[in-house]
Amino acid sequence: MRVGMLTGGGDCPGLNAVLRAAVRKGVQEYGHDFIGFRDGWRGPLEGDTRELDVPAVRGILSRGGTILGSSRTNPLKAESGVRRIKENLAKFEVEALIAIGGEDTLGVAATLSASHGIPCVGVPKTIDNDLGSTDYTFGFDTAVNIATEAIDRLHTTAESHMRVLVIEVMGRHAGWIALHSGLAGGANVILIPEQRFDIDQVCGWVESRFRTGTAPVVVVAEGAMPKEGDMVVKNDEVDSFGHVRLSGIGDRLAQEIEQRTGKEARTTVLGHVQRGGTPSAFDRWLATRFGLHAIDAVNEGDYGKMVALQGTGIVRVPLTEATAQLKTVDPALYAEAGVFFG
Amino acid sequence: MRVGMLTGGGDCPGLNAVLRAAVRKGVQEYGHDFIGFRDGWRGPLEGDTRELDVPAVRGILSRGGTILGSSRTNPLKAESGVRRIKENLAKFEVEALIAIGGEDTLGVAATLSASHGIPCVGVPKTIDNDLGSTDYTFGFDTAVNIATEAIDRLHTTAESHMRVLVIEVMGRHAGWIALHSGLAGGANVILIPEQRFDIDQVCGWVESRFRTGTAPVVVVAEGAMPKEGDMVVKNDEVDSFGHVRLSGIGDRLAQEIEQRTGKEARTTVLGHVQRGGTPSAFDRWLATRFGLHAIDAVNEGDYGKMVALQGTGIVRVPLTEATAQLKTVDPALYAEAGVFFG
Amino acid sequence: MRVGMLTGGGDCPGLNAVLRAAVRKGVQEYGHDFIGFRDGWRGPLEGDTRELDVPAVRGILSRGGTILGSSRTNPLKAESGVRRIKENLAKFEVEALIAIGGEDTLGVAATLSASHGIPCVGVPKTIDNDLGSTDYTFGFDTAVNIATEAIDRLHTTAESHMRVLVIEVMGRHAGWIALHSGLAGGANVILIPEQRFDIDQVCGWVESRFRTGTAPVVVVAEGAMPKEGDMVVKNDEVDSFGHVRLSGIGDRLAQEIEQRTGKEARTTVLGHVQRGGTPSAFDRWLATRFGLHAIDAVNEGDYGKMVALQGTGIVRVPLTEATAQLKTVDPALYAEAGVFFG
Amino acid sequence: MRVGMLTGGGDCPGLNAVLRAAVRKGVQEYGHDFIGFRDGWRGPLEGDTRELDVPAVRGILSRGGTILGSSRTNPLKAESGVRRIKENLAKFEVEALIAIGGEDTLGVAATLSASHGIPCVGVPKTIDNDLGSTDYTFGFDTAVNIATEAIDRLHTTAESHMRVLVIEVMGRHAGWIALHSGLAGGANVILIPEQRFDIDQVCGWVESRFRTGTAPVVVVAEGAMPKEGDMVVKNDEVDSFGHVRLSGIGDRLAQEIEQRTGKEARTTVLGHVQRGGTPSAFDRWLATRFGLHAIDAVNEGDYGKMVALQGTGIVRVPLTEATAQLKTVDPALYAEAGVFFG
Repeated sequence: MRVGMLTGGGDCPGLNAVLRAAVRKGVQEYGHDFIGFRDGWRGPLEGDTRELDVPAVRGILSRGGTILGSSRTNPLKAESGVRRIKENLAKFEVEALIAIGGEDTLGVAATLSASHGIPCVGVPKTIDNDLGSTDYTFGFDTAVNIATEAIDRLHTTAESHMRVLVIEVMGRHAGWIALHSGLAGGANVILIPEQRFDIDQVCGWVESRFRTGTAPVVVVAEGAMPKEGDMVVKNDEVDSFGHVRLSGIGDRLAQEIEQRTGKEARTTVLGHVQRGGTPSAFDRWLATRFGLHAIDAVNEGDYGKMVALQGTGIVRVPLTEATAQLKTVDPALYAEAGVFFG
Repeated sequence: MRVGMLTGGGDCPGLNAVLRAAVRKGVQEYGHDFIGFRDGWRGPLEGDTRELDVPAVRGILSRGGTILGSSRTNPLKAESGVRRIKENLAKFEVEALIAIGGEDTLGVAATLSASHGIPCVGVPKTIDNDLGSTDYTFGFDTAVNIATEAIDRLHTTAESHMRVLVIEVMGRHAGWIALHSGLAGGANVILIPEQRFDIDQVCGWVESRFRTGTAPVVVVAEGAMPKEGDMVVKNDEVDSFGHVRLSGIGDRLAQEIEQRTGKEARTTVLGHVQRGGTPSAFDRWLATRFGLHAIDAVNEGDYGKMVALQGTGIVRVPLTEATAQLKTVDPALYAEAGVFFG
Repeated sequence: MRVGMLTGGGDCPGLNAVLRAAVRKGVQEYGHDFIGFRDGWRGPLEGDTRELDVPAVRGILSRGGTILGSSRTNPLKAESGVRRIKENLAKFEVEALIAIGGEDTLGVAATLSASHGIPCVGVPKTIDNDLGSTDYTFGFDTAVNIATEAIDRLHTTAESHMRVLVIEVMGRHAGWIALHSGLAGGANVILIPEQRFDIDQVCGWVESRFRTGTAPVVVVAEGAMPKEGDMVVKNDEVDSFGHVRLSGIGDRLAQEIEQRTGKEARTTVLGHVQRGGTPSAFDRWLATRFGLHAIDAVNEGDYGKMVALQGTGIVRVPLTEATAQLKTVDPALYAEAGVFFG
Repeated sequence: MRVGMLTGGGDCPGLNAVLRAAVRKGVQEYGHDFIGFRDGWRGPLEGDTRELDVPAVRGILSRGGTILGSSRTNPLKAESGVRRIKENLAKFEVEALIAIGGEDTLGVAATLSASHGIPCVGVPKTIDNDLGSTDYTFGFDTAVNIATEAIDRLHTTAESHMRVLVIEVMGRHAGWIALHSGLAGGANVILIPEQRFDIDQVCGWVESRFRTGTAPVVVVAEGAMPKEGDMVVKNDEVDSFGHVRLSGIGDRLAQEIEQRTGKEARTTVLGHVQRGGTPSAFDRWLATRFGLHAIDAVNEGDYGKMVALQGTGIVRVPLTEATAQLKTVDPALYAEAGVFFG
């Protein structure tokens, strides 16, 4: 049996670990062979492949990124996309597909599997941790570690200069990275997309921190937004959902805090360093287990499913269910962190 | 209401994070005040305390170890131990105790709570991850990260010299650190206490790895044991349970592999570096949440309980249940890793 | 003999290590006692001090920032600045000053020492490594390590998406951090303030890298500038020296590369994380040795000097000489790195 | 012109960076081509080679170990060793050799170059930093960083349990790693091979540390030795130089301290993790510059030389001079550290 694999969406530490684990187990235990499709769904759409045997996956466990490349190509929007994928699977004699990706990549897998009879198994991937049905996705722990280390570093600068240091972390729609790294890093304010912030309250926390004789670090998710009317907003900052979408919320927030409190404020935008490089031990472990369980599902012909972490065990959930809605931060969980604000 | 806190057993990254979180929330939200008992159960036994207010817990989130000190003192074995603890709690006007520790420390808390009416809440701590009722304990993720980084480093030396590199990691009774770091580090053999190893099979994996043109890294938990008769064992290596207990299993294993395969082998015993230093982001997050939930339990008067992680949520379980038996590695989970051996 | 210490300018990993070493040696070997002035030259100017005895410096070796605080206050520009400093030194019975800082802070020390008879010893500090007379300053190695780790991470993202990744590092006037981290991180283009870049050449390197089947990482110092006419420049980007001073050179460069090569480009601005947090081993060693040698100079009454690293030894150089001109990257050294471009 | 390269002796982070830099510059600037000899001097002795072109060195800058393999083969002790090397160089049309290694490997290069007309250029490599004529060798900074991080971790455990923690680091004949990491890690005792230690004095420092209310970390180089008669020594611990050579000095020291002071003591033997894994930024920079300058020397026909770091510049020194004697820790430098003992 020949199995195709692809990785779609933004790159993420752990993708290679999934590939390695699936190939190792598929070859050794089930006698499968493998083929890699390049650049997400572009690969099966255009028939672009690369070798994916045991030597090809040697030494990649600890490497970030993906040896298969990635893209955001959506074959459902391409002309005759489904037909071309079917033809290419036939051409390369691929009998099952393992798709590794986030909401978009897995949404395609769900449709291809449910509506077009293409046998797909999904593996969840997003550093944002906003996919449902799974406790965590790999890449998230690595991103949180990197952000936490950065927050640790900013504390010493904040204190030495008695300045506000704002750090903008990833999270357009969900505040998981901000919340976890903020808690782990001892941030004095954490702002997430799930709950509009009140700039007066933020400045209150900032000032209260200064009153203890130290200086505040503010963690803000890139998708965090002020309450309406709170900060002056231009028209082009209202997105298609009618949400205020500030580009550069970190910088904007620092300016606003500086003006309102009279304290110097500086911003760090952590950016792409959060998603690259070697995965943390947890992410390697999780990605490896996802790979092992994905190939088990293929071997059992259990298609249309996504592997997922629940507690310490790996389970399978329907792809359609997993991609149905974003997993955002629960208000109660966010409230729990509030004790550390200020 | 005054709450006493203590930390017992081996030190572990995250202990200070628990103290900080409980104090911050207790003071700000519930109006509690706190007192620290020094060196585990020795503190309440001997009435040895230290201040534990908000300034005392400032800046300790990222520091390993415990500002309260630790010991293995068991007050149940001390003369009039229970009476003396009661007297000291009365003397310092302590109305509830939060005990942070492993099997032994929490076992005492269970007994004091159940049989002597001392209001205790437990927080699980063990870098070995072998406590039941909780998915993970803090300290474990840090230890696994350190061990994984060490394994990463050993691979390059193994390959450059075509040598076997054996690394002995913590885990006297449970192989969690060995299993997780071995999987994450791409080890070629992982040996755990839960399953006696067959030295011939180990040497087979070692030789099979060399045949791929690279060189093996072997991860062995300190409590791993050979099959009976497999390696010559002296009488003083049989412990009180009748188990063969090799001191220095790492060195012994390297010698045995060297003799049997003719390949050079070297050992690294990672030792105490696994348990010290700044906690990983995950461990800071987990320890912080444990601290927040422990003080909630105190506030609700829900004694005799231990806070525990189940999935992504914190729950409370009876202390007696949590300490009833060791959580060891499931044979199926260990078998899953076997695909990477050799 | 009472010695005053102060730390001025931007904070920097290793400042605390200098304080600790000087205090430990001064107290134990010479019987000095110490007083800390707060916030650089603001401290002696305004008579703002804090305790600086052996317990005060315990545990600070590994902490970034400065326990004394810092500022950019220039007492030579303050009314009666010199007189006020003299009065405060007399008031606190301070007989010698150790000033730790960069060009500005040490320039003040040079003047106070040479023209006003205030006994000063200088310790060089700048993460930019642009102070003359010393091979390296502490803080630089830490910054280079952080930037290199970031570059490592960006490579995997660049390759997975076949994108250009631009990273902007510190260095307004000197390209040391860019050059060292770029070489260490295997960057494909390194741009420094010392040499205006040719945007066509940069795009040529970018395209040449893509032709090898991988993707480029571009390291740019914040002070790097294009050749005149090369990129459209607005009036407010010409600084008082007549230099084109692009704010956000990283972003500008990424846009320009994207437009010219048609390849996606993304920017990371590393910012303040380069200057905070625990110092590297080298920086702790260097800062410690600077502290030890500074107090030796004080003890010998050898004022008006700065301690400096030359080879593996610590020497003393006149403060006036050390602050005379910026140490920039030698064109030959930059040319040496050119073999890795593209 | 074809250039052969080999790496000999213990592996060391940075070897691959040297190979990459020499190949990149030799190919691009001088039109050289390259061949790799496997496993140190075994390669040219037995004619065992591997490809070493630009693609072969891609991506290896950040990888520890050596893609050429290493060994301790000494061709001068092999039958007809010199003749066989000459034959193999002729066979593979190699006109110059770059040998990367420590005292032994470079000693062979010195002899082959001086006495047998084989054109060799040397690159110094030793994590122990004990080669003369160069300020530092690559690998050393990485080892010091790893050891320092370990010492940081041990401090928290020492303090939590009020125990002595002994850490044994590399350094059989020279105490550089112990001295630098001990200073950087804030060790309370540092013991090096260059100066026999007095066990009473060591215990005095240990007790003095406990009196400050904290607990000591003791760093000991593997080659450190007690004064004669100080600790009971067995005959087999006297080596061929008549020196007491304790195997496991770390363990022995911990036992001795425990017996004499009555304080619990534990040992960590850091071992091979000090020499593996990704090089630090400094080591990548130094190794890269060594590679660039070694190929310059070859290009100029300047044989019999070793590249060396002096200050911030790379120079060439005669191979015979560089390997003439071990660079050990100067007593004055060691004395400087003494202020931190106890």
